[in-house]
Amino acid sequence: MRKIHVIGIGAGDPDQLTLQAVKAMRGTDVFFLLDKGEVKSDLTQLRRDILDAHLPEGSYRVVEARDPERDRRAGGAEYSPAVEDWRTARAGIYERLITGELGEDGTGAFLVWGDPSLYDSTLGILEEVLARGAVEFAYDVVPGISSVSSLVARHRTGLNRVARPVQITTGRRLAEGFPDGVDDVVVMLDAHQAFRQYADEDIDIYWGAYIGTPDEILVSGPIGEAGPRIERLRAEARERKGWIMDTYLLRRHPGDA
Amino acid sequence: MRKIHVIGIGAGDPDQLTLQAVKAMRGTDVFFLLDKGEVKSDLTQLRRDILDAHLPEGSYRVVEARDPERDRRAGGAEYSPAVEDWRTARAGIYERLITGELGEDGTGAFLVWGDPSLYDSTLGILEEVLARGAVEFAYDVVPGISSVSSLVARHRTGLNRVARPVQITTGRRLAEGFPDGVDDVVVMLDAHQAFRQYADEDIDIYWGAYIGTPDEILVSGPIGEAGPRIERLRAEARERKGWIMDTYLLRRHPGDA
Repeated sequence: MRKIHVIGIGAGDPDQLTLQAVKAMRGTDVFFLLDKGEVKSDLTQLRRDILDAHLPEGSYRVVEARDPERDRRAGGAEYSPAVEDWRTARAGIYERLITGELGEDGTGAFLVWGDPSLYDSTLGILEEVLARGAVEFAYDVVPGISSVSSLVARHRTGLNRVARPVQITTGRRLAEGFPDGVDDVVVMLDAHQAFRQYADEDIDIYWGAYIGTPDEILVSGPIGEAGPRIERLRAEARERKGWIMDTYLLRRHPGDA
Repeated sequence: MRKIHVIGIGAGDPDQLTLQAVKAMRGTDVFFLLDKGEVKSDLTQLRRDILDAHLPEGSYRVVEARDPERDRRAGGAEYSPAVEDWRTARAGIYERLITGELGEDGTGAFLVWGDPSLYDSTLGILEEVLARGAVEFAYDVVPGISSVSSLVARHRTGLNRVARPVQITTGRRLAEGFPDGVDDVVVMLDAHQAFRQYADEDIDIYWGAYIGTPDEILVSGPIGEAGPRIERLRAEARERKGWIMDTYLLRRHPGDA
């Protein structure tokens, strides 16, 4: 039976690999590296560097494929036809990779930035491939250091305050309103800096981009003060590198609402 | 200047250490192992095993101390005098460890289960020690694989569903009601199995104890079916080992409320 490892490789610092991840990589025959267009050169190269650093030369194969871009013109609907087409297209690509590149008893791996459990689609796609029934395989998940953990470690703060909850959500949802019942909110996938609409509230922001890499940028402070600086640094960095990966924690102060 | 590493060592599997954690450990002179009474023998031994496995013998010192138990008789108030006394007592212990066991240019480390950013008090205590002003030191944080990441990796599911939020909270808060605005909730520090009150709702539970260790137990399914099994296994395991570390994800299905 074919076997697949879904391996979290950390948020950007190659030293964030776990020993478990290195062991799983050493038991892998074929690595599937999927890229998303413009981000390609940097992120694919980082993964190749990780393989080079930890695996004996010639002990593995790498297969690159293009991860289809989601058609975002369709707007905000999460289950629109565009999203379904995109999911189907991705499942087809993963199915062809597994059937075409992996022998009957072969072991393949997908290397996932951060942690495969957090805002990553690999597990969902593998379940979809299994549901299609064209190929059978077993898979396991090696957890990774998420960009969320990395962010707060670099800022030397906790995700939650004592005995209080934390919510992890998206930029789109934050734009619809500050979540109910929590004062600590981590925001991922925010292309529009939704934090700006909270600039007048008593909220601190802990922001980071390219965390754990030589390009890392960290900014923290009250949104009203730190926000404009983040906007400027973010725009400059994105212009310079062609892509950006960033995330932030918002910490609202008690008494404020 | 004294230096302190706060090192996340993963949720129980020694292979969950990151390469970054191993490097930080190799640069450490003195490890401070704090234990909490009954959990002592197993968890302190696990940390000693991790040190043995990765560091040259004789290259480091270990100092054990007793982490004072919080007086929980005072009830639910988060900022009650009992909690303040407890925080002060802990800060005093950490301060004495740092001043008494670490030379002026020495490097110490605290090894934290899971991730130092999630429901862990080490960072708060170090800030309190610095605020007291009796000793100066620099510190950094090495993120670790949290029990939350480990839990969902072992269950091969995501923390969040596509484009939706996830909340991490405590058993005490879950007992007060299902959080607003989210259908995916991770519960930590639940000594009373608060999930039981949701047994009649259309909610799946993904539960795990001693995750990543040889004693690992995993159960998943609708709360109504899986819940009684979890209660039984949890009671048995706790009786057998004398302590338990468990956590769970609740996943409510759309349309239900």
